[in-house]
Amino acid sequence: MRDVAVIGCGMTKFGELWEKSLRDIFVEAAVKAIDDAKVDRVASMYVGSMTPGLFVGQEHVGALMADYLGIPHIPAVRVESACCSGGMALRLGFFEVASGYSDIVLVGGVEKMTDGADVTYALATASDQEYEVYHGVTFPGLYAMIARAHMHKYGTTREQLAMVAVKNHRNGALNPNAQFPGQVTVEQVINATMVADPLTVLDSSPVSDGAACVILASMDLARNSDRPAIRVIGTGAATDTLALHARADVTRLEAVNRSAEAAYKMAGVKPADINFAEVHDCFSIAEICIIEELGFAERGKGGPFTEQGHTALAGKIPVNTSGGLKSKGHPVGATGIAQVVEVVEQLRGTAGKRQVKNARIGLTQNMGGSGASSVVHIFTNA
Amino acid sequence: MRDVAVIGCGMTKFGELWEKSLRDIFVEAAVKAIDDAKVDRVASMYVGSMTPGLFVGQEHVGALMADYLGIPHIPAVRVESACCSGGMALRLGFFEVASGYSDIVLVGGVEKMTDGADVTYALATASDQEYEVYHGVTFPGLYAMIARAHMHKYGTTREQLAMVAVKNHRNGALNPNAQFPGQVTVEQVINATMVADPLTVLDSSPVSDGAACVILASMDLARNSDRPAIRVIGTGAATDTLALHARADVTRLEAVNRSAEAAYKMAGVKPADINFAEVHDCFSIAEICIIEELGFAERGKGGPFTEQGHTALAGKIPVNTSGGLKSKGHPVGATGIAQVVEVVEQLRGTAGKRQVKNARIGLTQNMGGSGASSVVHIFTNA
Repeated sequence: MRDVAVIGCGMTKFGELWEKSLRDIFVEAAVKAIDDAKVDRVASMYVGSMTPGLFVGQEHVGALMADYLGIPHIPAVRVESACCSGGMALRLGFFEVASGYSDIVLVGGVEKMTDGADVTYALATASDQEYEVYHGVTFPGLYAMIARAHMHKYGTTREQLAMVAVKNHRNGALNPNAQFPGQVTVEQVINATMVADPLTVLDSSPVSDGAACVILASMDLARNSDRPAIRVIGTGAATDTLALHARADVTRLEAVNRSAEAAYKMAGVKPADINFAEVHDCFSIAEICIIEELGFAERGKGGPFTEQGHTALAGKIPVNTSGGLKSKGHPVGATGIAQVVEVVEQLRGTAGKRQVKNARIGLTQNMGGSGASSVVHIFTNA
Repeated sequence: MRDVAVIGCGMTKFGELWEKSLRDIFVEAAVKAIDDAKVDRVASMYVGSMTPGLFVGQEHVGALMADYLGIPHIPAVRVESACCSGGMALRLGFFEVASGYSDIVLVGGVEKMTDGADVTYALATASDQEYEVYHGVTFPGLYAMIARAHMHKYGTTREQLAMVAVKNHRNGALNPNAQFPGQVTVEQVINATMVADPLTVLDSSPVSDGAACVILASMDLARNSDRPAIRVIGTGAATDTLALHARADVTRLEAVNRSAEAAYKMAGVKPADINFAEVHDCFSIAEICIIEELGFAERGKGGPFTEQGHTALAGKIPVNTSGGLKSKGHPVGATGIAQVVEVVEQLRGTAGKRQVKNARIGLTQNMGGSGASSVVHIFTNA
């Protein structure tokens, strides 16, 4: 298997981009990534997108984006794994380059969520239609159940949940691409509009439009480029039951754990070797569970670990330096690639006020549904 | 890049499977393929499906199928390229095995189209929403325009179009999995209910439910299996403008040509080396254009080539021995994998009354939209 590197990246600002269509925003990010990589061709394209069919009535977005990008004959395909469509697209693009079939591949993610579709229903199709959606449960409710169980089993406090949002907004305030760069306090999070008890609207990631793209290349080609090569040293993916009720312990996100174990093994690193991480904080409780499953915090201790500041920008393992889904925004198909954009910027040392000191190994964790899919990648500038 | 083989396959009967849900039919095909391959594990799963979100309100079908199949922790992902979602899933599964990352991968396709959704709209999302769908054109209309242009430019006759359907129903009559095994005459096709002039309902593939799965393995592993190894010797994919109006010549399906060229080059074969093929006859005119683009017939001569019987079961290049999309049925995400199932059966010599004599090299061609995506694979039993 050949070594693979990221040699370019680009993203749109995340937000309510009403003046731009699905194809506009993807192409904006793709052109930025191509320019950044300084390549004059790509062999193929992967587009992560969760449900453009339900959001804007457009499937077949792989071919559409190749067409609109002005390169209508290259192979192009869409990849879908709910909210980890972007991360899975990266994994499949990685395989194409690693196999030796192609030298340069464009991998992007895109979602246009604010054009008027029923967003709550569209997102709910990532859960089990026959056993969950049919009975009326949607994602805020599912994550609220996880939060209640975690509070009951481990003593996680309401304030600790809020501290995830506070930290991520603090980081997002330093990110010019963030949808909601404003800062919030613990009191504001707790007293915000209730969505699904105990989660308020400020525990929840927003509804967003946006796109992000990266250029993958074989390491041989990357070495001959004058762009910094960010090597992909680990990829891991795993699934779990689609329905939350089918799990033995709803405080566990076993797919996260398994996807991380696979990536750690491939990269030959341990959790303690990771310098910083972008993780899937779709709701505040998600980040607490995820930092446990990734091995950063002990099982059940994600709340206190957050409270103690270990995941802050200056902490021992900075998490979501970009602002995360919470502050940066969560155009679902784009999220997994936007995480990679942040990691690349950190490893290049170009993250500005968000820069992590001595960043050498970074990790991305992207998740679908209530943890039914997870994909982890590990990157290094070494 | 490692050699890859198909070591097992299975499919459901295609039809209106009202008593079974999306997950039921996928798992039925997956279990058949696993049993056929005699494997006790798969490392990961790819699920080709066009728009389960619009058809049955369920996205995230990669994880769902792993869960319902009883192996909820393996990596699983959905692949979408409109009606060639199945063929693209095969290509991506091929890369995972070829790269050396995994030894055994399950690749399937599934669609549940008859559960009450607006099928014409759902399928139309594979064309250009902003420039085609918005103005009211759907696929029968798009292919009717291709047919009219082909008749005008090359003198293709109405009878020649009908002969595609007649041949494919004759083959489908020999396939126990076919949705419409009944035979038809040229007169019946021409005089059937008009859908989009000149195409009648009998020029058109049906609306179907169904699933098909194959097991891919590294050639090293396949050689140590007691199952026949059908080697994948070529894969090629290409795209074209999503909108028909953007093409210089609407009688051309350039993505088909380019995907075939890539696959021929990789396999080291020419069109004349292909013994039989499964191609994407979503409408009768499509098969005529495709056999030209694949190099079986001369440009513009697909109609006479069909009339002369060259694509019949006993002809020089049998096309759609399974009955094709026309007779076998067209559950869109499943079609590309069902084509592979037919090729595997032919190369194993187990195709019964449909058996092609001396079948040694077979080709599959799967297409999305009005030719905006195409993927070609070439297989051999040698």
